[in-house]
Amino acid sequence: MKQLLLTGFEPFLKYSTNPTMNIVKSLDGREIGDYVIHSKILPVEFKLTGEKLMEYIEEVKPDAIISLGLAGGRSLFTPERIAINVNDGPVDNNGYAPVDEEIIGGGADGYFTTLPIRKMVEALKEEGLPAKISNTAGAYLCNHVMYRALHYAKQQKRMIKSGFIHIPASHELAIEQKNIPSWSEEDLKKGVLICIEVLSEME
Amino acid sequence: MKQLLLTGFEPFLKYSTNPTMNIVKSLDGREIGDYVIHSKILPVEFKLTGEKLMEYIEEVKPDAIISLGLAGGRSLFTPERIAINVNDGPVDNNGYAPVDEEIIGGGADGYFTTLPIRKMVEALKEEGLPAKISNTAGAYLCNHVMYRALHYAKQQKRMIKSGFIHIPASHELAIEQKNIPSWSEEDLKKGVLICIEVLSEME
Amino acid sequence: MKQLLLTGFEPFLKYSTNPTMNIVKSLDGREIGDYVIHSKILPVEFKLTGEKLMEYIEEVKPDAIISLGLAGGRSLFTPERIAINVNDGPVDNNGYAPVDEEIIGGGADGYFTTLPIRKMVEALKEEGLPAKISNTAGAYLCNHVMYRALHYAKQQKRMIKSGFIHIPASHELAIEQKNIPSWSEEDLKKGVLICIEVLSEME
Amino acid sequence: MKQLLLTGFEPFLKYSTNPTMNIVKSLDGREIGDYVIHSKILPVEFKLTGEKLMEYIEEVKPDAIISLGLAGGRSLFTPERIAINVNDGPVDNNGYAPVDEEIIGGGADGYFTTLPIRKMVEALKEEGLPAKISNTAGAYLCNHVMYRALHYAKQQKRMIKSGFIHIPASHELAIEQKNIPSWSEEDLKKGVLICIEVLSEME
Repeated sequence: MKQLLLTGFEPFLKYSTNPTMNIVKSLDGREIGDYVIHSKILPVEFKLTGEKLMEYIEEVKPDAIISLGLAGGRSLFTPERIAINVNDGPVDNNGYAPVDEEIIGGGADGYFTTLPIRKMVEALKEEGLPAKISNTAGAYLCNHVMYRALHYAKQQKRMIKSGFIHIPASHELAIEQKNIPSWSEEDLKKGVLICIEVLSEME
Repeated sequence: MKQLLLTGFEPFLKYSTNPTMNIVKSLDGREIGDYVIHSKILPVEFKLTGEKLMEYIEEVKPDAIISLGLAGGRSLFTPERIAINVNDGPVDNNGYAPVDEEIIGGGADGYFTTLPIRKMVEALKEEGLPAKISNTAGAYLCNHVMYRALHYAKQQKRMIKSGFIHIPASHELAIEQKNIPSWSEEDLKKGVLICIEVLSEME
Repeated sequence: MKQLLLTGFEPFLKYSTNPTMNIVKSLDGREIGDYVIHSKILPVEFKLTGEKLMEYIEEVKPDAIISLGLAGGRSLFTPERIAINVNDGPVDNNGYAPVDEEIIGGGADGYFTTLPIRKMVEALKEEGLPAKISNTAGAYLCNHVMYRALHYAKQQKRMIKSGFIHIPASHELAIEQKNIPSWSEEDLKKGVLICIEVLSEME
Repeated sequence: MKQLLLTGFEPFLKYSTNPTMNIVKSLDGREIGDYVIHSKILPVEFKLTGEKLMEYIEEVKPDAIISLGLAGGRSLFTPERIAINVNDGPVDNNGYAPVDEEIIGGGADGYFTTLPIRKMVEALKEEGLPAKISNTAGAYLCNHVMYRALHYAKQQKRMIKSGFIHIPASHELAIEQKNIPSWSEEDLKKGVLICIEVLSEME
């Protein structure tokens, strides 16, 4: 079988939970199509996350990498089109707030995802879940992880499909944060499964 | 048993479906606590809706009235606090667009709901569904129905609890309309049931 | 000449300044049409604001009252249609956060404004400033002041026109708060002047 | 003196006017610091815009290119960080709606702007205008123009600074479109001038 590295994040900023953490954990070891899922939770720290990601890649030797992140304020599933070579944003969980830093010195300005994001969006909508392609993963940890994984994959001889999917807040988070759009955890998990199925069917 | 008149609306404006219609229809005849539900769908026409509502009230002789409406753009359940004596808004399904008209000539400027909206909000959140009290039902058909029902209830000798609850778009609508917050139909229906249970437990 | 009581608020919640304060102060003593302006700044405290308002009314003996408030997040001028008999909201500047309290025990549920709000909106748009009627002033201090003034006016023998206008954030506030819509202070002040002119021309 | 090519767009989609058109036209021939401004209006057509841009570049032989675009819905000035190699979006003014097309076959996935966008944002805020760096120019005509200009500049031996700035709607547009954030045309023009001054001072 093929190996899928599925990552989520620990809680960050003002959010007391992170729905990606629960979803990712609940899918560990599960087989979908040709893939067996290896679930990992990443820290929200610019100076640590990439290293952790590399460790997990070494450990799992994935054929594909899907990273999940919370997009508080978005109301739909948004597979990301591109990662950019910049760290910029509010303080991370280690108190660090980079301004316009490169992720990889001399790296490409941007890397397009190698996941089938158009088909993912179509499948999500067919299954009744709102979705669209996003043209920005921001410049915070989500983008960082997406860029690091794509940069790594480009260096390898074998093909590793890689990309990032932003998901809406859970109802639980919306009750805490007020007035951000939210889905049930069940819907969020269903969306992730649909995306993995699309990946599997591509091959 | 007590009689609950539960109303929804037909589709309106740019929306091809109206989630309140499906929810209301699916609950017809159901018993919740002391209440048996009588489901009715109202037209989105200023000159017809009130008359229809009065017919249904005559038919059902309700002990309580809960009207549901779609609030495209809101991300949570919002029981409404007040109905106001004005018709104002975009064209209805009959091509009519009132400007600053009274609903009831000489009627009170506003009527507070007589539903237990604070308890409804608390119960929804306890059950994992985002909710808050709204201070405006607008000046379109939703407010119109809420005002008409409250005005009618005030004239009666016996107590009739009455009010309005706005619900978010369904995922189905969000796929069609793009970028409006949405819930699954299951969550929407669950929210309505919680509100009816709160009503029942009050008495 | 006629007397116009024009009120603004001191800063509140997370906002370090309040554009209504500057605008109101800058117009004190100015004559517009038949009106001379008396400017007053109100505290953001549920238990103090109404009392202060009554003092200022006694002092000015106004023929009309226009109260201004900041609506952080709104992008246009919104004259308010109705005030409702409820205090509810986040903590005020005195640490008090009421839940579903009446403003005036046994008072009307709502009072419509007696300002010419439709004409104000039309005039603002003709002069190039986005505007629309709002159907809710919330349930915080803005609504409180609007309700108190309208309740007072109803008790008087002579006609006192009264109402509330919410204005967008200033650019200064938006720089501080991020991502809230904003206007220049010049545009905000121009909008207030247009509304006063409309009031004056009505009579 | 140095030559600055300043481009705006004609109206598009649902918008009857385009504030970038007026601003750009009003600045034609003006000298700011070391730069003289050459103003050009671009069509909103995927198959024509790039060609027109290349013509104007040949004509002006610019030392710097600043392109402006309307971002209906954004409330602040947003200099763009990156252009991406994709055409995707709603129909253009010629009825064409590309899906996930490359702009330049085999071109880089993304190009960072070469304008001093961090300094532009700081200067705008110092001058009282809300601003922040944007990480996406979308995948419509704005991004297209930004990508084409940056791609061209990379091929040249001499340095050509190039980039894109999204601006909010004008009040005029907001009156037409309702509920989108807006600035006065004066503020919009002031913002563009500040950005050009920052560019000039860099060198």
